Amino acid sequence: MLQDPSQKYLPHPPVNLPDRQWPNQQLTHAPRWLSTDLRDGNQALAEPMDSARKLRFWELLLKCGFKEIEVAFPSASETDFQFVRQLIEERRIPEDVTIQVLTQARSDLIERTFAALQDAHRATVHLYNATAPLFRRLVFRQSKEEIVQLAVSATRQIRALCEAHPQTQWSYEYSPETFCFTEPDFALQICEAVADVWEPCAERPMIINLPATVEVNTPNVYADQIEYFCRRFSRRNAVCISVHPHNDRGSGVASAELAILAGADRVEGCLFGNGDRTGNVCLVTMAMNLYSQGISPRLDFSDMKQVVEVAEQCNQLPVHPRHPYAGKLAFTAFSGSHQDAIKKGFTARQQASSLRWEMPYLPVDPNDIGCSYEAVIRVNSQSGKSGAAWMLEQNHGLMLPRALQQDFSRHVQARTDRDGNEMTLAAIWQLFRELYGPHKLAGRQLLDYRSESQGEGLLSLQVRIQMEAGVITLQGKGNGLLSAAADALQSRFNVAFAIEDYHEHTLGRHSESRSAAYIRCTFAKGESRWGVGIDNDVARASLQALLNALPSDDRF
Amino acid sequence: MLQDPSQKYLPHPPVNLPDRQWPNQQLTHAPRWLSTDLRDGNQALAEPMDSARKLRFWELLLKCGFKEIEVAFPSASETDFQFVRQLIEERRIPEDVTIQVLTQARSDLIERTFAALQDAHRATVHLYNATAPLFRRLVFRQSKEEIVQLAVSATRQIRALCEAHPQTQWSYEYSPETFCFTEPDFALQICEAVADVWEPCAERPMIINLPATVEVNTPNVYADQIEYFCRRFSRRNAVCISVHPHNDRGSGVASAELAILAGADRVEGCLFGNGDRTGNVCLVTMAMNLYSQGISPRLDFSDMKQVVEVAEQCNQLPVHPRHPYAGKLAFTAFSGSHQDAIKKGFTARQQASSLRWEMPYLPVDPNDIGCSYEAVIRVNSQSGKSGAAWMLEQNHGLMLPRALQQDFSRHVQARTDRDGNEMTLAAIWQLFRELYGPHKLAGRQLLDYRSESQGEGLLSLQVRIQMEAGVITLQGKGNGLLSAAADALQSRFNVAFAIEDYHEHTLGRHSESRSAAYIRCTFAKGESRWGVGIDNDVARASLQALLNALPSDDRF
Repeated sequence: MLQDPSQKYLPHPPVNLPDRQWPNQQLTHAPRWLSTDLRDGNQALAEPMDSARKLRFWELLLKCGFKEIEVAFPSASETDFQFVRQLIEERRIPEDVTIQVLTQARSDLIERTFAALQDAHRATVHLYNATAPLFRRLVFRQSKEEIVQLAVSATRQIRALCEAHPQTQWSYEYSPETFCFTEPDFALQICEAVADVWEPCAERPMIINLPATVEVNTPNVYADQIEYFCRRFSRRNAVCISVHPHNDRGSGVASAELAILAGADRVEGCLFGNGDRTGNVCLVTMAMNLYSQGISPRLDFSDMKQVVEVAEQCNQLPVHPRHPYAGKLAFTAFSGSHQDAIKKGFTARQQASSLRWEMPYLPVDPNDIGCSYEAVIRVNSQSGKSGAAWMLEQNHGLMLPRALQQDFSRHVQARTDRDGNEMTLAAIWQLFRELYGPHKLAGRQLLDYRSESQGEGLLSLQVRIQMEAGVITLQGKGNGLLSAAADALQSRFNVAFAIEDYHEHTLGRHSESRSAAYIRCTFAKGESRWGVGIDNDVARASLQALLNALPSDDRF
Repeated sequence: MLQDPSQKYLPHPPVNLPDRQWPNQQLTHAPRWLSTDLRDGNQALAEPMDSARKLRFWELLLKCGFKEIEVAFPSASETDFQFVRQLIEERRIPEDVTIQVLTQARSDLIERTFAALQDAHRATVHLYNATAPLFRRLVFRQSKEEIVQLAVSATRQIRALCEAHPQTQWSYEYSPETFCFTEPDFALQICEAVADVWEPCAERPMIINLPATVEVNTPNVYADQIEYFCRRFSRRNAVCISVHPHNDRGSGVASAELAILAGADRVEGCLFGNGDRTGNVCLVTMAMNLYSQGISPRLDFSDMKQVVEVAEQCNQLPVHPRHPYAGKLAFTAFSGSHQDAIKKGFTARQQASSLRWEMPYLPVDPNDIGCSYEAVIRVNSQSGKSGAAWMLEQNHGLMLPRALQQDFSRHVQARTDRDGNEMTLAAIWQLFRELYGPHKLAGRQLLDYRSESQGEGLLSLQVRIQMEAGVITLQGKGNGLLSAAADALQSRFNVAFAIEDYHEHTLGRHSESRSAAYIRCTFAKGESRWGVGIDNDVARASLQALLNALPSDDRF
């Protein structure tokens, strides 16, 4: 890299629009969407899709609700041509879906394009030619006048061919390529000239597509360019303004969103930002961004896992784990403070009367896109007390008292610090049972008990316990079940302890639910231990929790 | 997904700033950078880095030129604490590099934080507390006053501890969390209160960091929030304004860039956008975005492959093939028209006197980040004549005549359409040799020749050729070498052909270079065939090219 790249690279000049209005706007409704996965996306794959993969992707796009789909560049490849024919001849195109195809401005290619579209119900013919100075000078060596003439005569040919095939509902799209580094007034000039030939109206719809085929500036500059164009284009109300942003500066989504604020009606892009080099704008992200602001995107990603699966299979490219909304980690918190906030958010949500989604760190409800809450919190050495507690609550229904959360968290932290990796739910549950129960692996089991109220607030208790060495029977008295049990255990084993904490809740909401009991005992020298019991009978759960809180050493 | 998500999701309100100035600004210089890969990035990994991986990443960050690095959250984890101690005690921190650590606003955690930083040369203590209404209400259940009080008293403690340890050059960073959905005036209020305690000045530097911990609106709204803050904050000139954007809406890069336009001085983020959930802003993309506009980023990514390799190994997360600048496909064109433009761009560049990089579809020169031009053009069924021609030129020095490019392209297209996958360089070279030479696998080889000028423009030629069946000797006459050779061949084999095209160029630039010759012959019924020869002797190259242009069937 050059220390001073200014000798090699020129900043791209912005358009002069000091009275821009777009920053005062907000997103209020979804744009028209066009998926170009099968065309711009496909041409960027190391292994372009065969017809089976193309059909699978086509079905996915229909399922997601796309109504405009660019399906091919039929004059450029036989595979593309045949795919268009297959869609039409096998009647695979729903009534309300418009297919779109791309063509260059050459007479023979345009003829071939119309041959591909023969008998389509609805179709958009998409013409592009190069308008940017770099392309005019370097690639085509044509003057502005020649470039305009090329677009105009191709448009004339396309209009004539449309009129010669009235059985199809035609739409026409023109793209000055690359709009974002074409002189703004030349882009206007050529689009005016093209529109003068097409004469857009309700019966002859027209889309003016303004691509950022290569991103060359911050997205606000693109928005300025779009607003500049929209305010000056004489037939603004007769045409649909479309944008087609790429992602060379990593801001394809922002470019599209700000362009909509600036007046664009329509967005062309791909699922998960597939497309040439760094990709086209990601339509999944854009749609979900609208959704999370309460605006219906008019696209359906309620089964995001399937969308990811089909796209990955057809494109043979991965969706990144941190992809917004669709990545495996998009909703995952490992950090303790994040987990704590999310856990509180879910608790508040259970108690709230409003449907409103207000969740720390989670802009959308994973349920809305077909995901469970399992991946929301995962536990490693960065996690605090809430992470493991959340997992036990979500998967085992246990709502640990705060002090037990802290106690368990210390053990989890020691384990993850030692092993250096993530703890799975199974590992967390195993560690919890080793420490607290409800069924300790090497502990003592309550077999049965008999309790008898003797009046004057006195209760006598007899319990039978399965010890490692055999069954023992204990007896004790107290003013309640737990104090009687403590009396029985202390007199038998001659060790003093006090019950410091007692918590209990039912698991689930039915009357026949089981109960979970949590007990903390303190011993001499301030030692403190927790035990957990679960049983259909609250009393049995409590007694087992007490047994589990006692150390399993020789003293007992 | 809900058809009408407006019942569940609220749009986030923008700040009112109709006289915003940032859209009139342009990027002119690099911001201060802080890498939080070892902290915010690390806390988002399924398997957080152990100390060896952390050290490897630390060395990478130094090599890239980072001068501010957030290294840990020492009060939250023993691993983090020990890593800070290791950096300091093993004297791994260069003089001009400042380490930064995060802490919550609790007295014991702050004490522990300073214990970690003992004897650091330069250090930034980074305090955050929750200021957003959702967090105040749901997570902490504290009033605005209590939240301000928490930040103020923690700042007081931090200032006292800094003053008690004057051997370290201290800097202080405060983050109202999450700024982007805190009421703008409350964010101002708490930052004013914190700054009143710290009293920022040249000797007591302060960073006010305004995080978008969760992206909740379009990036222009974040820019408005930043400008709103900068214009109203009373000590604006005494502090450094920092931003910390995440990527929940896929516009982290845009948010950071527009925030810089709006007045921010500093950006916190991670390489390749690692970080919680959908990640932090990607500092590689941001730096290269500046670079490609002629602005030195003051970071060095000239060995991008190594940066990718270390980051992937330490994070155990992939860099996506379409990542801007660093993805495997970031500079790759498969499509024919793109390849054609790029090929012309490279040709023009060889002839240009200016250093200026002007290349269709390639915003930066891959060489600048240590990549070759090999990946720029790859060939599959979407490619046109330029793709394969480019690869032969880049790798074998052959500059095919345009008509030969077209001829070869038809064969490549047929092959890729048939096989459905990409053609490697080796496969392209193999196909080329099968068709045209220079050393046809089953062809005839020129052994030697003798030519003699006989005056009156007549040349007599004798050639010896290795045929499959044995060596033959031919004789012919013509007004030049090729016509004499044609005469010899035609009289021997009794088949008529004409030489239609002849091209020749040297390979390389030295006088001892070899020459490549390209010859097209036409036969009866309009059949047309190309042959290619390469030799130190131009005449031998031409004769071999002619032999290669003849069909290898029985006629010869």
